[in-house]
Amino acid sequence: MDSFNSRLVNAVNDKKSHLCIGLDVNPEGINNHNATIEDLKFYTQKIITATHDLAVAFKPNLGFYERWGSEGFKWLEETMDSFEEDVLVIGDAKRGDIGNTATQYAKSLFEHFGFDAVTLSPYMGLDSIAPFISNPKKGVFILCKTSNPSASDFQNLQQNDKKLFELVAEKCFIWNEKDNIGLVIGATAPEEILSVRNYAPGLPLLIPGVGAQGGSLEKSMKHGNKDGISIINVSRSIIFSTDLSEKSIRKSAKEYVDKMRECIDE
Amino acid sequence: MDSFNSRLVNAVNDKKSHLCIGLDVNPEGINNHNATIEDLKFYTQKIITATHDLAVAFKPNLGFYERWGSEGFKWLEETMDSFEEDVLVIGDAKRGDIGNTATQYAKSLFEHFGFDAVTLSPYMGLDSIAPFISNPKKGVFILCKTSNPSASDFQNLQQNDKKLFELVAEKCFIWNEKDNIGLVIGATAPEEILSVRNYAPGLPLLIPGVGAQGGSLEKSMKHGNKDGISIINVSRSIIFSTDLSEKSIRKSAKEYVDKMRECIDE
Repeated sequence: MDSFNSRLVNAVNDKKSHLCIGLDVNPEGINNHNATIEDLKFYTQKIITATHDLAVAFKPNLGFYERWGSEGFKWLEETMDSFEEDVLVIGDAKRGDIGNTATQYAKSLFEHFGFDAVTLSPYMGLDSIAPFISNPKKGVFILCKTSNPSASDFQNLQQNDKKLFELVAEKCFIWNEKDNIGLVIGATAPEEILSVRNYAPGLPLLIPGVGAQGGSLEKSMKHGNKDGISIINVSRSIIFSTDLSEKSIRKSAKEYVDKMRECIDE
Repeated sequence: MDSFNSRLVNAVNDKKSHLCIGLDVNPEGINNHNATIEDLKFYTQKIITATHDLAVAFKPNLGFYERWGSEGFKWLEETMDSFEEDVLVIGDAKRGDIGNTATQYAKSLFEHFGFDAVTLSPYMGLDSIAPFISNPKKGVFILCKTSNPSASDFQNLQQNDKKLFELVAEKCFIWNEKDNIGLVIGATAPEEILSVRNYAPGLPLLIPGVGAQGGSLEKSMKHGNKDGISIINVSRSIIFSTDLSEKSIRKSAKEYVDKMRECIDE
């Protein structure tokens, strides 16, 4: 059985794409404050149709679905049914709870919704992660150094010469016995990607923060693909591209993929 | 407009109860591995009916609902409709994401589902919390020192003489401008409740870990109600009490409330 991390490496190589497209669809994004869930469903399908051959992964963001309660979760169930076989689907859930509850979330995300991998928060430690890594085919990306301005409130706390996010990287490297753990590191902190790589060589990285958040694509690709692979998440800059048409969504995704290929070829 | 923290203090005083009942209902808990959602709904109603006059708060645990996808969220919506006016309802969600996504989760939990407060993870810092604390009437409980065995993987990281969980307490005290921030501290670390109180005097505490997880009720009540109030969460020991009847659920809840009152009277 292929582990999640090896599936990811193979998918990147097969598709020659490091692009993960974040599905963060809301009425504000499509400039229609009266949008119904049907409108959002229609728009989500448009994004997937326009980009499924370019993206190595899609990353539905659960917050954008949960906002609508049970109707939003129905929309997520329908979204999950619409992906092609050759893309990986990462649930951006950032869950993190004690073992008994983590087991329920793992059932939800892997068994009910059928994600290939999910994002998790490390705050509660290994037993909050364990139920998600027992099956090597399913993977996790653990929050390490995030892309938001307040990331340093806690993630830079330093004991001796090691910061919290570096300790997270080090522990995840140790916990990666089944080859199914990766890390989330923001493109907004490119120099810290190198530091994380020292603590966690080989672990795949999920790098958000390029595009609307202003992180460097070039540095993310260069540092992120040393001693392991990285996939780069782009959400708003692709899914809400210019006139919101299928054509402009595809054009934006294609430009990102081309730029990423140039970075790799250099 | 009353802030969440003042509503909580008033509710504890009015009801003379520090008991929060965690709603973690699953087929395994009711010893019926073939239980349908209808069975779980019926059982949840039984718990609420049996205990609503004893509990100052209920804490539905979102993982147990999400496990069932959109049908589970429908069950949560129905659960939310069944609480009496005089109980506070805390969504145990442990969310934590960048501002744009946090806004979606806040809409979900406060506007769609209608929780009075939610639990959040601090890992991503203030901007992941800000959308939840803009309305003083709605509150948050931030994970500080948790009750699970792996809590110390990261929460004890120490810079100078301050541990990560103490830094969380200190920051939350500063961020509590609208009197709507509390902290989650496990009963399994009673001596650390005192330390947290030094950094965050006056903040309400939500203390899980009594009961099935083995934390001390007496120490939690004693330390937790010094310089502020605490509510004690009990889940499995009440909701799955002995023969699972309404009578035994009520009996267990009553015993906890009585013990808590004794601790306060001492």
